[in-house]
Amino acid sequence: MQVPRKILMGGGPTNVHPRILSAQSLPMLGYFQEPLLAIMDEIQDGLRYLMQTESRYICLLGASGHAGMEAGIANLLEPGEKIVIINQGVWGWKAAQMARRYRGDVVEVCKEPGVACTLEELEELLATHKPAVLFICQGESSTGTLNDLSGLGQACHQHNTLLLVDAVCSIAGSPLFTDAWDIDCLYAGAQKCLSAPPGATPFMMSERAIHKLQNRRQPVACYLFDMELNGRYWNWWQERSVHNTGLITNWYAMREALAIVADEGLAAVWQRHSDMHHMLWQGLGQLGLQPLVKDPAHRLPCVNAIQVPPGVDARAVIDYAMKTYSLEIATGLPPLNTAIWRIGLLGYNAAPHNVALVTTAFREALQEQGYA
Amino acid sequence: MQVPRKILMGGGPTNVHPRILSAQSLPMLGYFQEPLLAIMDEIQDGLRYLMQTESRYICLLGASGHAGMEAGIANLLEPGEKIVIINQGVWGWKAAQMARRYRGDVVEVCKEPGVACTLEELEELLATHKPAVLFICQGESSTGTLNDLSGLGQACHQHNTLLLVDAVCSIAGSPLFTDAWDIDCLYAGAQKCLSAPPGATPFMMSERAIHKLQNRRQPVACYLFDMELNGRYWNWWQERSVHNTGLITNWYAMREALAIVADEGLAAVWQRHSDMHHMLWQGLGQLGLQPLVKDPAHRLPCVNAIQVPPGVDARAVIDYAMKTYSLEIATGLPPLNTAIWRIGLLGYNAAPHNVALVTTAFREALQEQGYA
Repeated sequence: MQVPRKILMGGGPTNVHPRILSAQSLPMLGYFQEPLLAIMDEIQDGLRYLMQTESRYICLLGASGHAGMEAGIANLLEPGEKIVIINQGVWGWKAAQMARRYRGDVVEVCKEPGVACTLEELEELLATHKPAVLFICQGESSTGTLNDLSGLGQACHQHNTLLLVDAVCSIAGSPLFTDAWDIDCLYAGAQKCLSAPPGATPFMMSERAIHKLQNRRQPVACYLFDMELNGRYWNWWQERSVHNTGLITNWYAMREALAIVADEGLAAVWQRHSDMHHMLWQGLGQLGLQPLVKDPAHRLPCVNAIQVPPGVDARAVIDYAMKTYSLEIATGLPPLNTAIWRIGLLGYNAAPHNVALVTTAFREALQEQGYA
Repeated sequence: MQVPRKILMGGGPTNVHPRILSAQSLPMLGYFQEPLLAIMDEIQDGLRYLMQTESRYICLLGASGHAGMEAGIANLLEPGEKIVIINQGVWGWKAAQMARRYRGDVVEVCKEPGVACTLEELEELLATHKPAVLFICQGESSTGTLNDLSGLGQACHQHNTLLLVDAVCSIAGSPLFTDAWDIDCLYAGAQKCLSAPPGATPFMMSERAIHKLQNRRQPVACYLFDMELNGRYWNWWQERSVHNTGLITNWYAMREALAIVADEGLAAVWQRHSDMHHMLWQGLGQLGLQPLVKDPAHRLPCVNAIQVPPGVDARAVIDYAMKTYSLEIATGLPPLNTAIWRIGLLGYNAAPHNVALVTTAFREALQEQGYA
């Protein structure tokens, strides 16, 4: 098996922290043995700290971040109910696709790429549609856009709406306060700012979300991601039972990732992502490169969207970085494709030497194209 | 993180092969980088050998074995269509639960625990119900029962029925010939006879199954396991695109697991499981213990169900083995619970020294209870 070393500075996955690589190689445990249940308890404690919540309804889903989106929609929404989906890029678009599969009445609100939502416009949408669920990404990684979610949960609850938030990319990369912001369902990603391998998706529900789940008229259409059944494995109710085999080595990896966050301290982790973001833009700015997101307050620190200047071959820059430095720079995702590059400053990789390398690669690649 | 060493001889997961533990710690690759795509191609080749098929519609799902069941039902069955489900234990029961979520017209055929199906009775069910799909486990691990599937695919196709087979537990543990037996959809487990960690679920579809998928009237209800979308990542169609982030370290693990099978040779792997099964029953027979499955031809070699003799405390035997040898012996699953024990002889652990230890643990634990 040929696995060359790459420096992954695209939109994710990122390089895995060495402590996490070691942790996932610990011996296998049975899916219901005491030491594994203790690790699951510790994971829940770590997730509560990471998400800044005291909810007992917290767990890992055993699949990629998509599973969080699917579980959120499948459990919170009943067929025929209205869901307002903020589409600021690929993830919003996918959420709308999914919600239609679950036979929701989907109101898809498409924003211009790189433009964040204001609380006022979201309040207006809530008042107009009074949806059962509002979906929004804290960070939309396809465009590097960060939404300010403070006050949104309170606004939702005035209209009896549940707030479903995608934090796959932003978790640990930007401040997030689940309880203070009254978020009802939040999911995150392992392979972004947590520097773990994909496969363990942090997932959280509020009391309100659980109440909705327990009073559904129809069963959750997807069996694997039925949170009443998953919650039994994670001790949400009085008695523990297994729903499906946990992804045990991915659990180990997440247990270690959460310990690493706790060791550094969440505020310090947020600050480091912010510092590296500013260092990156200082370097790119000197090259004359511009961010897609105009408003500095709405730039996602951990995934940065860079406008490709007119006349520049975006793909040639990416190829130069990979050929010369084994350095991954990402393209945009549809429809932006080669209109932007994306640079991830994700967890373990959000470090000055990597930021400097990215700047160097851009400078050299642009020089090669004669860009002044 | 406290992860004591355990010898896992229950129904799975099993101890991970050291080569696989090493492989999953290889450096992370981007989800669309050439070296990862090459590994995915190699995995497909390995899976074709493992499953004895030439189908190009083969891949890994990024979740536990349950995902295979969910994907099989979600993709093959349309709402309102009839599915006959052979319930010989927990897995058949789960499949019926799932198929109802997907709004199938479910005919659940419950068999006595430990009794296999005959081709004649299955042919009769097909003729009576003419279902869109027939679901059956090759090996039902909750009761240690092995079904003979030869001829079943041909019988299904006479009634325009698709054959969906669960081989989570039996793959690599018992002979299986996907193409010769005309199976339309097969899924398997990583953490059983392949000795990999859970999280990479082998999944295969026949041309017939793909034809059904491509001519559905309604979209697949579950987005994550829509095989048209997953197939794009695994190069089933002309153009590759990513559906969701692959579980990359779990892919590495499966790549290595498949190499280990190929190194030993599939026939030798099957023979080793059979040999260890006979060695186990020789030892247990001398203690007066009896298998749940009466017919030797229908005993699953890799998961063995042992009747708990009258007056014996099943739980005390399990506790003795764990306390004395850190050895996991499993209980039955509902409704059998403490009516049986289950011994897994799974992949890397299917070795004489483990079989001898199991026999020793039973002898000592039974002696402690005064069982003659």
